[in-house]
Amino acid sequence: MVGYPTPKRMVNKTVTKSETTQYGKRGMTLEDDINATNAYYLALQRAVIHKKPTPIQIVKVDYASRSTTKITEAYFRRPSTTDYNGVYHGKAIDFEAKEIASKTSFPLKLIHEHQLTHLSNVLNQGCIAFIIIRFTAYNETYLANATDIIALAREKRRSIPYDWFKKNAFLIQYSLTPPVNYLGIIDNLYFKGE
Amino acid sequence: MVGYPTPKRMVNKTVTKSETTQYGKRGMTLEDDINATNAYYLALQRAVIHKKPTPIQIVKVDYASRSTTKITEAYFRRPSTTDYNGVYHGKAIDFEAKEIASKTSFPLKLIHEHQLTHLSNVLNQGCIAFIIIRFTAYNETYLANATDIIALAREKRRSIPYDWFKKNAFLIQYSLTPPVNYLGIIDNLYFKGE
Repeated sequence: MVGYPTPKRMVNKTVTKSETTQYGKRGMTLEDDINATNAYYLALQRAVIHKKPTPIQIVKVDYASRSTTKITEAYFRRPSTTDYNGVYHGKAIDFEAKEIASKTSFPLKLIHEHQLTHLSNVLNQGCIAFIIIRFTAYNETYLANATDIIALAREKRRSIPYDWFKKNAFLIQYSLTPPVNYLGIIDNLYFKGE
Repeated sequence: MVGYPTPKRMVNKTVTKSETTQYGKRGMTLEDDINATNAYYLALQRAVIHKKPTPIQIVKVDYASRSTTKITEAYFRRPSTTDYNGVYHGKAIDFEAKEIASKTSFPLKLIHEHQLTHLSNVLNQGCIAFIIIRFTAYNETYLANATDIIALAREKRRSIPYDWFKKNAFLIQYSLTPPVNYLGIIDNLYFKGE
């Protein structure tokens, strides 16, 4: 089992004000950025991490056309797991990502009870599990250990203050390639010296 | 990295003829059986392995109703990864499952090129990767190492003979709980003595 090192703030912030502004203008969502990051990791054979498809309940399907089967009635289902998972250095990786507009706090209702249970289950199996949260107001993206988020949610809090992330989570430096280099944080936390 | 032990045939076959017949009558698909098996593993906290949702391209959505968002036009997309993945003893697990009616061979076209590449990628990351294949004619379910299937596919074969599975893959014993106990095979191959 791997330990959970004491969280520390990242230093050597390389994002300048102008870059941040430009980045905001690009209008890329956190999901776009994570998908681009995962594609970059895959191209370099650094990790294989994919976003899971959105679960959909299919009700009616039209087989009239030979070439394509058309779904004519379907509904979104609430995911019972997290959005992203995969493998890195043989270890299973599992995480959820959320982008929020609030300047002051992260509302815990954004992580469903099923997802908290799932994160707890994968942690019990020795998985590396975390949550990536972007405060769009500051254009800051944090990686928080799933253990911490689960513990805070179990305290029946409604939200986690922004300041908590500044102190206890890990700021992911913005870069162009890849946009959200979360494995840099994971390397520091789990694979130091390898 | 873990080694790939020499495949061996399973002995002590516990499925009797009458059980096999009864099982056939139940009309459970391989997917049903694997889902039930994964639910069983999860309930026992033995492993966390889920089927990924089917990837769907959403074209039109009707927001008219407040309570539910209705998808009115969508299409199935070809999956770029395998159907199942998760974590077991800290190791990433990744596999595809196929059920076939043929009595003589497994057609390799059932595993798409993208999926072979994906299996190769996760193997490079130290993942435990395999394919579960059920020959419905014999009601036999085999676990084959992904390395073997990839090697055979790269030989530009069209199919893999049934006899190959009998010799080189691992027969998964049928049981009621769980119906497809593939982790029993994985324990023998990767976690012996733990």
